[in-house]
Amino acid sequence: ETMKNILILPGDYIGPEVMAEAVKVLEVFKAEGEPIAWSFGHLGGAAYEAEGHPYPPSTQQAARAADAILMGAVGGPKYDGLPRAVRPEQGILGIRKDLGLFANLRPALAYEALAAASPLKPELIAGLDVLIVRELTGDIYFGQPRGRRKTADGHDEGYDTMHYSVPEIERIAHVAFQAARKRRRRLCSVDKENVLETSRLWREVMIRVGRDYPDVELTHLYVDNAAMQLIKNPRQFDVIVTGNLFGDILSDEASQLAGSIGMLPSASLDANNKGLYEPIHGSAPDIAGQNKANPLAMILSVGMMFKYSFGRTDLADRIDAAVRKVLQDGKRTGDIAQPGEPVIGTQEMGAAVVDAL
Amino acid sequence: ETMKNILILPGDYIGPEVMAEAVKVLEVFKAEGEPIAWSFGHLGGAAYEAEGHPYPPSTQQAARAADAILMGAVGGPKYDGLPRAVRPEQGILGIRKDLGLFANLRPALAYEALAAASPLKPELIAGLDVLIVRELTGDIYFGQPRGRRKTADGHDEGYDTMHYSVPEIERIAHVAFQAARKRRRRLCSVDKENVLETSRLWREVMIRVGRDYPDVELTHLYVDNAAMQLIKNPRQFDVIVTGNLFGDILSDEASQLAGSIGMLPSASLDANNKGLYEPIHGSAPDIAGQNKANPLAMILSVGMMFKYSFGRTDLADRIDAAVRKVLQDGKRTGDIAQPGEPVIGTQEMGAAVVDAL
Ligand SMILES: CC(C)[C@H](C(=O)O)[C@@H](O)C(=O)O
Ligand SMILES: CC(C)[C@H](C(=O)O)[C@@H](O)C(=O)O
Repeated sequence: ETMKNILILPGDYIGPEVMAEAVKVLEVFKAEGEPIAWSFGHLGGAAYEAEGHPYPPSTQQAARAADAILMGAVGGPKYDGLPRAVRPEQGILGIRKDLGLFANLRPALAYEALAAASPLKPELIAGLDVLIVRELTGDIYFGQPRGRRKTADGHDEGYDTMHYSVPEIERIAHVAFQAARKRRRRLCSVDKENVLETSRLWREVMIRVGRDYPDVELTHLYVDNAAMQLIKNPRQFDVIVTGNLFGDILSDEASQLAGSIGMLPSASLDANNKGLYEPIHGSAPDIAGQNKANPLAMILSVGMMFKYSFGRTDLADRIDAAVRKVLQDGKRTGDIAQPGEPVIGTQEMGAAVVDAL
Repeated sequence: ETMKNILILPGDYIGPEVMAEAVKVLEVFKAEGEPIAWSFGHLGGAAYEAEGHPYPPSTQQAARAADAILMGAVGGPKYDGLPRAVRPEQGILGIRKDLGLFANLRPALAYEALAAASPLKPELIAGLDVLIVRELTGDIYFGQPRGRRKTADGHDEGYDTMHYSVPEIERIAHVAFQAARKRRRRLCSVDKENVLETSRLWREVMIRVGRDYPDVELTHLYVDNAAMQLIKNPRQFDVIVTGNLFGDILSDEASQLAGSIGMLPSASLDANNKGLYEPIHGSAPDIAGQNKANPLAMILSVGMMFKYSFGRTDLADRIDAAVRKVLQDGKRTGDIAQPGEPVIGTQEMGAAVVDAL
């Protein structure tokens, strides 16, 4: 077996804290003889401070060379005043585009042990298991032209271009159909076809690609309706596929349903399943440096890495099982504790997972 | 007092059914001597069937001449196969643009009597009262250029232009700040300033206009975060202001929170408070023609018309009070009934409101 090289980008605020616990998990597997090695780099605010850019050349080189990347979380108030070009989110957008990480997989999962933490009524989310497949390198995020221009009557206006090409839609469609095939074989494509030209093409291509997957049921929803249905009856969904902008909004909405945003990992994959893995939650400046953050989303991101980039579903399953075990044992960080439940710290939670492994 | 002329556009499926109940309310006020008169026109699928276009010239003329417009709901499966240019939604988009109805006000309100109908836990939505102010004639909905083009490497792509000019942002900002001033004096502007040029200008202008309203607290949220916060803690919001596309998504999401989408009216206003008033819900083809639809959103839309277009808050308040009374009396259409509660029909609900008036 060839050695797998992992680049670790801890990031900002709670990023390094949750990453430290993920590294403990890597150490367990390394000690068992798994061929993994890792090194550290900078991304986001930390990168700007160390090297003057949120996605500096050193990180770029290391990221291109790595077999997979783990990222903590980036951004925060310290960096809000920076010029736009060097703000932390430019680091994220830069690495996604540079590595061609076009397929963002974001599961929204209800953990039985945490049902009480959901804002939704328990009967609506029991057993919830939705996978959102978000296109991540196209759409209005990178569309040209964009900027400022004058209107016909001489006023300033800001503008951006939303766009998707046929091959861009095709490749994310295949990722989504294939994911659905491994699950409950239902795919819902979300667009705004009644208004947008981009969505018209999106829907056409989805339907065409769908012919290659007769075993998967394809449906379509307008994005406004999808935002409603996710609240009204989230369990109607198996896999949702959508563009970068709608995916940004819907996946964040979905992450709240189960009341477990501190538990949700994500994967951003290129065409060869090289990926960047990160929690769905942000850098949580309010609790940074206090050993309070929930490291489980970061640890589950390690699991996704083993599954998607290294083809090691066995190790991913072990991580999943360990996380379920610590939850069943009643271990809770503050974000997932109910009033009155005893709370443990980031490091204790990491240690508990290591024990359970 | 001069006569107020109301154009009534019943629309498709349940549209005419709920409109019939709203007309009963108009009749009450007319009988009391209010100077109102009304006439009927076509919009959406009904207009296409009758006159070959979803926003035909006859409706255009009548709409321009009217002092206010009441609309039921348009669209539905019957019209899905039509060429895009004559689909019902083109009727809606057409009338909005033609009349310059740039300010869409959509309240999301929790009725105490209906708390059990919400997908959210009752403690999260008790007393919820959020007003979403959505810009309605700009953004990517009408932006040029749009269509199909070739990418540099020869592939087909679909594209659209998002844009906002300074005056467009200014006028919706003033509407929102003024609304906030009459409420709890908090305004949250939603954008995607970390990615979009349009949003950068949006935020700049919001901040600038905000200086005219030092008594209103202005905050900003990214749209993805707003979609989360609406579920996590909806009561943190007073007024939300956002663009056409984000407003489409967030207002539909918000409409679900209180579990009362059959109860929510909306107003779409021009610069002189001429407006189009319609329920937030759609045309509900599944229950059309069965005397099952909830007419309360349509009736409350009549209330908004009196308040915003005719300056008659007193009549709006009477309608609100009548609706609260019928709810307190336990009157329920199917959509707002709990299992076991007796259900009444559209016409019975309308009659109950008329009685309560
Ligand atoms: C930070 C921001 C640019 C980013 C996005 O919009 O993609 C974030 O919201 C996300 O979802 O990863
Ligand atoms: C029918 C459609 C064009 C419309 C919109 O997107 O504005 C609808 O969703 C709405 O919110 O009124």
